[in-house]
Amino acid sequence: MDLIARLRAGLPGEAILTDPDVTGSYANDMASFCEAGTPAVVVLPRTVEQVQHIMRTATELRVPVVPQGARTGLSGAANASDGCIVLSLVKMDRIIEINPVDRIAVVEPGVINAVLSRAVNEHGLYYPPDPSSWEECSIGGNIGTASGGLCCVKYGVTAEYVLGLDVVLADGRLLTCGRRTAKGVAGYDLTRLFVGSEGSLGIVVRAVLALKPEPPGQLALAAEFPSTAAACEAVCEIMARGHAPSLLELMDRTSIRAVNDMAQMGLPDSTEALLLAAFDTPEPAADLAAVGALCTAAGATEVVPAETAAESDLLLQARRLTLTALERVKSATMIDDVCVPRSRLAEMLDGTAAIAEKYDLTIGVCAHAGDGNTHPTVCFDAADPDESRRARESFDDIMALGLQLGGTITGEHGVGVLKKEWLARELGPVGVELQRGIKEVFDPLGILNPGKLF
Amino acid sequence: MDLIARLRAGLPGEAILTDPDVTGSYANDMASFCEAGTPAVVVLPRTVEQVQHIMRTATELRVPVVPQGARTGLSGAANASDGCIVLSLVKMDRIIEINPVDRIAVVEPGVINAVLSRAVNEHGLYYPPDPSSWEECSIGGNIGTASGGLCCVKYGVTAEYVLGLDVVLADGRLLTCGRRTAKGVAGYDLTRLFVGSEGSLGIVVRAVLALKPEPPGQLALAAEFPSTAAACEAVCEIMARGHAPSLLELMDRTSIRAVNDMAQMGLPDSTEALLLAAFDTPEPAADLAAVGALCTAAGATEVVPAETAAESDLLLQARRLTLTALERVKSATMIDDVCVPRSRLAEMLDGTAAIAEKYDLTIGVCAHAGDGNTHPTVCFDAADPDESRRARESFDDIMALGLQLGGTITGEHGVGVLKKEWLARELGPVGVELQRGIKEVFDPLGILNPGKLF
Repeated sequence: MDLIARLRAGLPGEAILTDPDVTGSYANDMASFCEAGTPAVVVLPRTVEQVQHIMRTATELRVPVVPQGARTGLSGAANASDGCIVLSLVKMDRIIEINPVDRIAVVEPGVINAVLSRAVNEHGLYYPPDPSSWEECSIGGNIGTASGGLCCVKYGVTAEYVLGLDVVLADGRLLTCGRRTAKGVAGYDLTRLFVGSEGSLGIVVRAVLALKPEPPGQLALAAEFPSTAAACEAVCEIMARGHAPSLLELMDRTSIRAVNDMAQMGLPDSTEALLLAAFDTPEPAADLAAVGALCTAAGATEVVPAETAAESDLLLQARRLTLTALERVKSATMIDDVCVPRSRLAEMLDGTAAIAEKYDLTIGVCAHAGDGNTHPTVCFDAADPDESRRARESFDDIMALGLQLGGTITGEHGVGVLKKEWLARELGPVGVELQRGIKEVFDPLGILNPGKLF
Repeated sequence: MDLIARLRAGLPGEAILTDPDVTGSYANDMASFCEAGTPAVVVLPRTVEQVQHIMRTATELRVPVVPQGARTGLSGAANASDGCIVLSLVKMDRIIEINPVDRIAVVEPGVINAVLSRAVNEHGLYYPPDPSSWEECSIGGNIGTASGGLCCVKYGVTAEYVLGLDVVLADGRLLTCGRRTAKGVAGYDLTRLFVGSEGSLGIVVRAVLALKPEPPGQLALAAEFPSTAAACEAVCEIMARGHAPSLLELMDRTSIRAVNDMAQMGLPDSTEALLLAAFDTPEPAADLAAVGALCTAAGATEVVPAETAAESDLLLQARRLTLTALERVKSATMIDDVCVPRSRLAEMLDGTAAIAEKYDLTIGVCAHAGDGNTHPTVCFDAADPDESRRARESFDDIMALGLQLGGTITGEHGVGVLKKEWLARELGPVGVELQRGIKEVFDPLGILNPGKLF
């Protein structure tokens, strides 16, 4: 009995896509330089039972399964492999419960991040994780890649908001792990193991998420610096003095110019680094004044605090446009995601500038500076083989630099296909052996998202 | 070659204790009703290399190893098994680094929680996890049991503060996992797997801990209620309205009377429940006023807000004395640790009172109410076999009730020996199978803390 017929036995017709023109459009997420195969079929289940049927079928027939959310990922973790079942969770998009007393939401994996955020806002609650793609990306994808965002400097990453999960295992059995409670230490933390596992250990079909009370609206400040080193010094001072900004972002000269070219924002061309800080505290103006003074002391040539939410939005717009602006510089971009201890941020930025010069490339950097998480974005002409090669090499140099500075190859984008050769380098042989051992416990046949991570 | 001689080859003489009178004193942690065996030897290493030597020796000779911190645990997780090596980490107690810019501390496992807390305070930093035993318990033990404390309602549990670990594996190899950075998603989260694993996966020899800026001193309020249900209604209202207390504790009538009897605190005997709330916000008085009003609306007969830190301490003293006071009621106590969704807290407390009546026992409850984490404390006469049996049965009924209310058998004390029969009931067969699989990956010979957890 063939794969499609077997799938049909437990799925409605419209949940099974086989037209190659259609299935081909499910081959990729948003990463560059990542191989992608041709799926045999795309399935769009709407229930847990349907997911179980798909996994039982895959196990019986030994067919690889590639789970997908909204495919906004940046590491190729959702890329199809040849002959695989693409298991898209986008139709499982119900918000099942929002509970203000327990401060939790229970959701299906296909819920869009922004949809959940707005829904909990209506109850005076806040779901912090806010990847740049928050209007499109799904909670299941956020869990799979352990996504971050702008708010992490104060509120942490997705992992910190996942309390419990329902997961369909490789063989189709259903596991419920974690909790609905604020605390719980019964046994090993399987929930956390699934977060960031890129669909390689099981299919998340339901999540219990922790929520926070909705904070006051944030107020932002922009500070212009004559060097990235001075901006990084300000970042270190702000954090060492105990401030709790809700956002602390840095843009380098290349990013600033790209944004200026695109949107005529009037940022002075002499600015080498722009620092954006925001506070959602009860007295944001006082916090901004204190942080503004630290910026000035570190050498800022201009400090512009917003006085209203609208002014704040205007200041933050430059940061939001960065990636789009950098994508216009050349025909292609590769976004890196190296995170270093924030005390090493200046070295990371200087080192990245040196790598750009070495390879004669344009590399714009924006950074979640408060977290030490940099996104060096290599701009290159994909039609030029030499420039493409240099782009790939510079990308590797950037990761090597990050590791050398005590950092990690990925702060929030994940490993996927893009960085799997680098994962072993970061983890070391003992770590890799243990991780492979864990993978085998959950997926002895190796059918879940093969070729990713390791 | 025998065990002791083999250990001597890599350890100084004073690090090896073999006198049965001495080794016998290492047999137990602080849990009641938990079997403990007789160790063959107690070792007190001072270096990572010595720990590696111990584990290599244990692997070669197939000798079980029981890791111990300060033995303040409440589940028997550190209890010796017959013929085991007790591996006490208390001599590895260096604070290696405190870094205010990166907001991290790097420590050895034997560092006492309060010692670390005070050391980081000197840098304007804060290590939140504060188990009741914080003056005695060690960071390694806190990591092993994923400890909580009073501050968790605002600041979360130990797990949230462990960024990276060095772990000596069962076979003596050294694993470094996790990070020094604020974010990082490279591979499966092994770090989190070790937290709460009760020494069953490896020996933590170094930890990178996240720190927070030191908050302002907290200001507390006490509110007296005519019923636990009214107090729980206040808890739900406080949390649903988005307040962020730094402490939200509840004491039931039995606890209040025990404290009154011991310390003559003058709490009215008509009080059925005492709620304690504190805020370490910039304007604690305003927060206390708002919370006081919610208490009054929920039926509080008296609300006493502190105006100074000294007054706050006085109010909180009753809570701090609870366990000691309950220990004086009868010759023995069993402390439970059931955590339920906070919306079910009232049912948990009423149900516990019914269980006390059913078994004709004194059960005092104090609770980290903001977390839904209750500590029903069964007071009984250990010399009376029938009362001891009823105590044990009531303890089980309390866990069953917690699970029935959507809770967990352990919010912060762990499983150890005490609750291992209950772990399977909470996890279910699929969860247990996966957890056992993980255990086998890390400890194929089963020498690490055998007989605990499963």
